[in-house]
Amino acid sequence: MAGGAGTRLWPVSRDTLPKQFIALLDGGESTFQATVRRVSGEGFDRPVVITNQDFRFICAEQLAQVGVDADIVLEPERKDSAPAVAVGAVIASARREDALCLALAADHLIGDAEAFRADCQTIGELAAKGHIMTLGIRPTEPSTEYGYIRPGAERLGENAFRLDRFVEKPDRATAEGYVAEGYVWNSGNFAFAARVMLDELTRFAPAVVEAARASVAGAVRDLDFIRLDPASFAASPKISIDYAVMEKTSRAGVLAAAFEWSDIGSWGSLHAVKPRDEAGNVVEGDAAVLDTRNSLVRSEGLLTAVVGLEDVVVVTTQDAVLVADRTKAGAVKDLVARMKAEKRPQASEHLRIFRPWGWYQRIDIGPRFQVKHITVRPGATLSLQRHHHRAEHWVVVHGTAEVTIDGTVKLYHENEAAYLPIGCTHRMHNPGKIDLKIIEVQVGSYTGEDDIVRIEDVYARQ
Amino acid sequence: MAGGAGTRLWPVSRDTLPKQFIALLDGGESTFQATVRRVSGEGFDRPVVITNQDFRFICAEQLAQVGVDADIVLEPERKDSAPAVAVGAVIASARREDALCLALAADHLIGDAEAFRADCQTIGELAAKGHIMTLGIRPTEPSTEYGYIRPGAERLGENAFRLDRFVEKPDRATAEGYVAEGYVWNSGNFAFAARVMLDELTRFAPAVVEAARASVAGAVRDLDFIRLDPASFAASPKISIDYAVMEKTSRAGVLAAAFEWSDIGSWGSLHAVKPRDEAGNVVEGDAAVLDTRNSLVRSEGLLTAVVGLEDVVVVTTQDAVLVADRTKAGAVKDLVARMKAEKRPQASEHLRIFRPWGWYQRIDIGPRFQVKHITVRPGATLSLQRHHHRAEHWVVVHGTAEVTIDGTVKLYHENEAAYLPIGCTHRMHNPGKIDLKIIEVQVGSYTGEDDIVRIEDVYARQ
Repeated sequence: MAGGAGTRLWPVSRDTLPKQFIALLDGGESTFQATVRRVSGEGFDRPVVITNQDFRFICAEQLAQVGVDADIVLEPERKDSAPAVAVGAVIASARREDALCLALAADHLIGDAEAFRADCQTIGELAAKGHIMTLGIRPTEPSTEYGYIRPGAERLGENAFRLDRFVEKPDRATAEGYVAEGYVWNSGNFAFAARVMLDELTRFAPAVVEAARASVAGAVRDLDFIRLDPASFAASPKISIDYAVMEKTSRAGVLAAAFEWSDIGSWGSLHAVKPRDEAGNVVEGDAAVLDTRNSLVRSEGLLTAVVGLEDVVVVTTQDAVLVADRTKAGAVKDLVARMKAEKRPQASEHLRIFRPWGWYQRIDIGPRFQVKHITVRPGATLSLQRHHHRAEHWVVVHGTAEVTIDGTVKLYHENEAAYLPIGCTHRMHNPGKIDLKIIEVQVGSYTGEDDIVRIEDVYARQ
Repeated sequence: MAGGAGTRLWPVSRDTLPKQFIALLDGGESTFQATVRRVSGEGFDRPVVITNQDFRFICAEQLAQVGVDADIVLEPERKDSAPAVAVGAVIASARREDALCLALAADHLIGDAEAFRADCQTIGELAAKGHIMTLGIRPTEPSTEYGYIRPGAERLGENAFRLDRFVEKPDRATAEGYVAEGYVWNSGNFAFAARVMLDELTRFAPAVVEAARASVAGAVRDLDFIRLDPASFAASPKISIDYAVMEKTSRAGVLAAAFEWSDIGSWGSLHAVKPRDEAGNVVEGDAAVLDTRNSLVRSEGLLTAVVGLEDVVVVTTQDAVLVADRTKAGAVKDLVARMKAEKRPQASEHLRIFRPWGWYQRIDIGPRFQVKHITVRPGATLSLQRHHHRAEHWVVVHGTAEVTIDGTVKLYHENEAAYLPIGCTHRMHNPGKIDLKIIEVQVGSYTGEDDIVRIEDVYARQ
């Protein structure tokens, strides 16, 4: 499940590229990549990635980077976890009737992949017996950030119990009581037999399973993607799998797992799971700290200096800066909501915009002009397009461009420039084996993204 | 005196453009501009600006912006305040033998220009009687950031006294005692008769006055600037006017002035003098604050968000970010010293580099390429130059360029591009009445600033 849009890790995580796709982990991997890698190989079938259609290209690119093949199923809209689980179960049971499923969130950190896989084996075996197993995590502290699960008395296996009840995020005192009584954190990851889950969904949330079956039946293959039928999917209630099934079913079990786990729900929790220096700081990127303790400082390029502070989070990107009390970093969500209401582009969009063919980034803008850096992947092609209000100058600074202008095709090499007059039909293609990098200078009365007439597009965009 | 290089207001103030030239004041004026404007008009002669030669163009441009004519005297190196005061006195006494001087720092904030001018009248009259008057400020709090002056018992005029003694920056308890006993802050601004100052310098610091006379005698007029003779100036001791004269002379007096004053010695002191909102915050530029109090947030373009903090300073520029405890913001000086030792360019240089002809700013850089935005003032001309390792593409995005390439002159208008092959001799001139803006794409094996052969330069640079 990789469809979420985490705003609590703003400004790094934004709607157009949310946290599960960000290289937050040491080694530069995203949690999405780490998640699919953890369940690749022996014992696991080809993963089914369920994500929002907006993330299809980044999803495909990140899978290719880690060499994992997957079915990428696109949700036409956000519907919470029950519809995603239902769609997964429908697809799995079509592969084989007795399919066992792991429903995993793509934005979690897991410290020990081997321990995780061993636990998957355990809950898989219990799932085969008809249990719907939730992955519980033994608390390392009385956190108020997570929901808890009370394991029942009936033992299903080693560290596995029938599930007694779910409880919401508690206050500190309640959380201490829970920890003392052996409650575990609810990680939101599950194992079940596809058939059992579909049975329980049919019983407790029939509209969800109906919509899932119809949207899979009506799905369209589009390039490498499986597009769920929008009308059928729209009919599904928006509900979490906990509310739809887990709190109602008598088949629920829980494994009390002991590996390091975090849902990285805030910058504070990222600080908690990262290696810290002797002052308790996590410092990433170009940063300088002086007389500073227990803080997270992360820069994506700007020199970021912190002086004389404790328990702060400082995160800087090319177009936005967040400074927050580490223990109140959850409130970033409220701030982002406010900034969205104020229609600030930095609240939702990254400066670097990923496209199926690569990415672009604005590097300068002024009255009647805009400058972009455009990187085109080897073999990729931008749409055949036209602008009404701007001319463009393309200077190739790396690689080779095949440029079509009003039907005439010409190759441009490093240090060569093409001029595209207003209104001309043009297309850029990278015929080479290395990235093509272009500096695009736009000049005209209007340089907005929406002045684009797409005449033809290999990625079927309008 | 406008030659200082304030690092405690980093990242806005840097060696290449220090705080006195930054638009820190409401209304977008620099303290340098406010200082010269305050002493312009009736009762004041043409100001003598003494500054470092590195600041000559920004100095001239800022004077032109506020419409003040001044003699701009260039120090070949930094020598503290006594040599500057001596040079000023030498120049003033050459204008007229009985000249009265005000020696003012260019980086101070003064709240009430009228009160200031009235006090200048008062200390001017006392200076004419032979006193060397220091401008003392009645403390508004027991600050530990300023040196203090004890007024003597002998009254020289209304609020004016013979000076009893100077004391260094005290600790808090001592400062409270000073305030109770009627001490005033030492503002470092003075009034004196040129002749008296030269006499006292001759008596207490003869090497300073000798060097001043020789460096003025050997000065060279260069465009609008007066360049002090480097060898003569180099011979001067590096000493403050307080140590050289004020603590020794029997002619010192002090006026206890009552207007709002600050030397803006740190971000904390800027917070103290700016209008604050009801939460005690000063918020400037594109910023969003949530649950934040008594803080200074200043952005030069990046969206800057602060959540759940108190007493912090957050200052963001295009290439650097400072986050500091407001009460420890003086330590920024130490941080900058460390970053200079680490040879981080952001410690000393701004991203936007001012030149006599306008400014340029890097907007993108990568292997074998660099992109710059270049703005050329109307009528201005860049040097005739050549590069060994890079070709350049110039796209005009605003105004008109007169471009010379290997002797051929051609006009380029908005949306036209010129190509400069490696090794060609080229020059850019703005023949128009509005700013010329060019996007320059450099491509080549080396794009450093030092790959430039200047063949001819109207600003006499090498």
